[in-house]
Amino acid sequence: VSRYRHLAFLTDYGLEDGFVVVCHGVITGIVPEARIVDVSHQVPPYDARRGAIVLARSAPYLDPAVFLAVVDPGVGSDRRAIAVATESSVLVGPDNGLLLPAADVLGGVTSAVELDRADLFLRPVSATFHGRDIFAPIAARLLGGSALGDVGTPIDPAGLHRLPEPQVVEHADGVDAEVVDIDHYGNVQLAVAWPALGVDDGDGVVIRVDSGEYRVAVGRQFTSVPSGGLVLYADADSRAAIAVNGGSAARQLDVARGAIVRLSVGRTRGR
Amino acid sequence: VSRYRHLAFLTDYGLEDGFVVVCHGVITGIVPEARIVDVSHQVPPYDARRGAIVLARSAPYLDPAVFLAVVDPGVGSDRRAIAVATESSVLVGPDNGLLLPAADVLGGVTSAVELDRADLFLRPVSATFHGRDIFAPIAARLLGGSALGDVGTPIDPAGLHRLPEPQVVEHADGVDAEVVDIDHYGNVQLAVAWPALGVDDGDGVVIRVDSGEYRVAVGRQFTSVPSGGLVLYADADSRAAIAVNGGSAARQLDVARGAIVRLSVGRTRGR
Amino acid sequence: VSRYRHLAFLTDYGLEDGFVVVCHGVITGIVPEARIVDVSHQVPPYDARRGAIVLARSAPYLDPAVFLAVVDPGVGSDRRAIAVATESSVLVGPDNGLLLPAADVLGGVTSAVELDRADLFLRPVSATFHGRDIFAPIAARLLGGSALGDVGTPIDPAGLHRLPEPQVVEHADGVDAEVVDIDHYGNVQLAVAWPALGVDDGDGVVIRVDSGEYRVAVGRQFTSVPSGGLVLYADADSRAAIAVNGGSAARQLDVARGAIVRLSVGRTRGR
Repeated sequence: VSRYRHLAFLTDYGLEDGFVVVCHGVITGIVPEARIVDVSHQVPPYDARRGAIVLARSAPYLDPAVFLAVVDPGVGSDRRAIAVATESSVLVGPDNGLLLPAADVLGGVTSAVELDRADLFLRPVSATFHGRDIFAPIAARLLGGSALGDVGTPIDPAGLHRLPEPQVVEHADGVDAEVVDIDHYGNVQLAVAWPALGVDDGDGVVIRVDSGEYRVAVGRQFTSVPSGGLVLYADADSRAAIAVNGGSAARQLDVARGAIVRLSVGRTRGR
Repeated sequence: VSRYRHLAFLTDYGLEDGFVVVCHGVITGIVPEARIVDVSHQVPPYDARRGAIVLARSAPYLDPAVFLAVVDPGVGSDRRAIAVATESSVLVGPDNGLLLPAADVLGGVTSAVELDRADLFLRPVSATFHGRDIFAPIAARLLGGSALGDVGTPIDPAGLHRLPEPQVVEHADGVDAEVVDIDHYGNVQLAVAWPALGVDDGDGVVIRVDSGEYRVAVGRQFTSVPSGGLVLYADADSRAAIAVNGGSAARQLDVARGAIVRLSVGRTRGR
Repeated sequence: VSRYRHLAFLTDYGLEDGFVVVCHGVITGIVPEARIVDVSHQVPPYDARRGAIVLARSAPYLDPAVFLAVVDPGVGSDRRAIAVATESSVLVGPDNGLLLPAADVLGGVTSAVELDRADLFLRPVSATFHGRDIFAPIAARLLGGSALGDVGTPIDPAGLHRLPEPQVVEHADGVDAEVVDIDHYGNVQLAVAWPALGVDDGDGVVIRVDSGEYRVAVGRQFTSVPSGGLVLYADADSRAAIAVNGGSAARQLDVARGAIVRLSVGRTRGR
């Protein structure tokens, strides 16, 4: 009956306090048959940028959906509460940049509203748990069939808050790329699309990070290099990434999200 | 068809061993269409008091439900296995105090049974996994429509085990309050209802803990104070709580659950 | 309509990156009404042996199911992608031994196929995320009613990769048994079936591990010994296991999975 497959839910709440299931309860209290899928609730506290990455990665596989995303260091301040529509999905959360990368991969924002319909909130509205009191009830309404215009006042999508773009700077024989993500395995994802790097299987690349200089083989998969070896590869998001076969590249290179990795590819490619 | 929205499940099992999904399987083996929501399985091992807090926090949002809660350091001993009813929900678990705070917020226990119908258990009953062998099958029966009297023998609710109440002691110019909970963000929840504290927005309060004395601003939300500052606020459970804007109050104050926080509010309020 | 109760999903993906929900999305994109239960996604990275233990423990309670299990250090290499059938379930994953212990407890493999129907995969197939691109789509097809022969080419079950069996060596007055699992509580599960040990309630047993020699009481449950005491008991999988009442045996004995525990039971039994 719904135009959405499910409500996809992401937060930085963690799973230990019951905050996530409280929101589930609010949603199923409004839409009893709601199907809720948990994207992740392990976003590091207050880290909207990391939340945006995880949401954007999973959005194409969950679309069409109501996305409910709450990583909200400014809860209770004057940051706006918003819902934005893409061609097939809607996204609900704070206006702090969390939602837009996902909206972008779904084709871009087609319209947006500020959530100002207090009669739709859980009341009294707390000052610190808008996930429960504002965002979950609104997401449930949208899942239940309400239109965007039913839950708020139209605002200009151009005025929505955006997170800074990750740094990528080309240099003479390669590129300086920011580490945009480090996953559960310690694989290091860089802010550069794989094709843009122009390397081929079997090439050798030199990378430079704060901890030193490393020679890295270009390969298709982790096992392209011996156990413990470094490999530069196109990851499952089609981005350039560095892994260690059977280990953690983040640990071996001693890098964190936000670090800059200098890749020197020019000379070794022999072009 | 069921009078309950779902079966709400809380344990200290963690998610790594498969214990949780084994119970899911037992339940759906009895009630194939069972809708199970996981409240939390990250309760610290054997910590019934923490389990009780998380269950009571989420219960109002999940009601009416079959609550299945297992934090059970005395498994296999002579502690009783029980089910208790409130006006709209039933709760199943060990008689160690875990269930009663949730039952209280749902209006109180209206009746209780000891689970002694061995024919309803998974057999042979193990001595160490009553979640699987006793509690899950009984919870499933209740979800499927069995009455409380069908799954056990009536007992006097007055005789149920209760956890000790958290300490709150008023003194000349304020209150000594136990830390009842520390959440995922490090927010410190105190054993005192917000209105009882009698402070106002903008007041200054002095708190004393083992690590020293701190001046704390009273505010509505985290952003009422500068980044890194301490704020005393009414949390989403309407309790007095202390947070650090963008950080962890538990770490900054070096307090754990059970610690006593002395709040001096009298003089600074100027009343 | 399906012959399976659900799709049971186990990985080493962790919950922080969104990899799990991406696979959920792939599955519900193919079978919208799919019911997915998460067995665990906390298998230690690349640890197929631990994954196999958790899967085999939960399989009997989830059967009949489509089991989708991905712990896959050799992703992208020449290890085969397979699906195997038991009498009532099917299991999908890499051919690295992960699936077979679960298949064994479900009665053994009745047939097996190599997954070589590229037209059923998500394309382009990445080199590092076969859970998303190969295994999830195939598991969804099987859940949706496809036969094993529809998703791959028959292979000989005898040729499937098997993990090494845990070590058990009998000696003069007892047994040397490998630690096969350590659970969330620190309970130490040994590679020996309880009945094979031939001990009785109240017996004393001497165990020897690298950290020293310990006297352990045989008991039915944790509370058979005083708080902090060691107890040897039949665990919920009917295996010999060692626990500490209210604590962690793994920590107290300083043992990890793979360690050898020497149990001397002969003399103390007095038989």
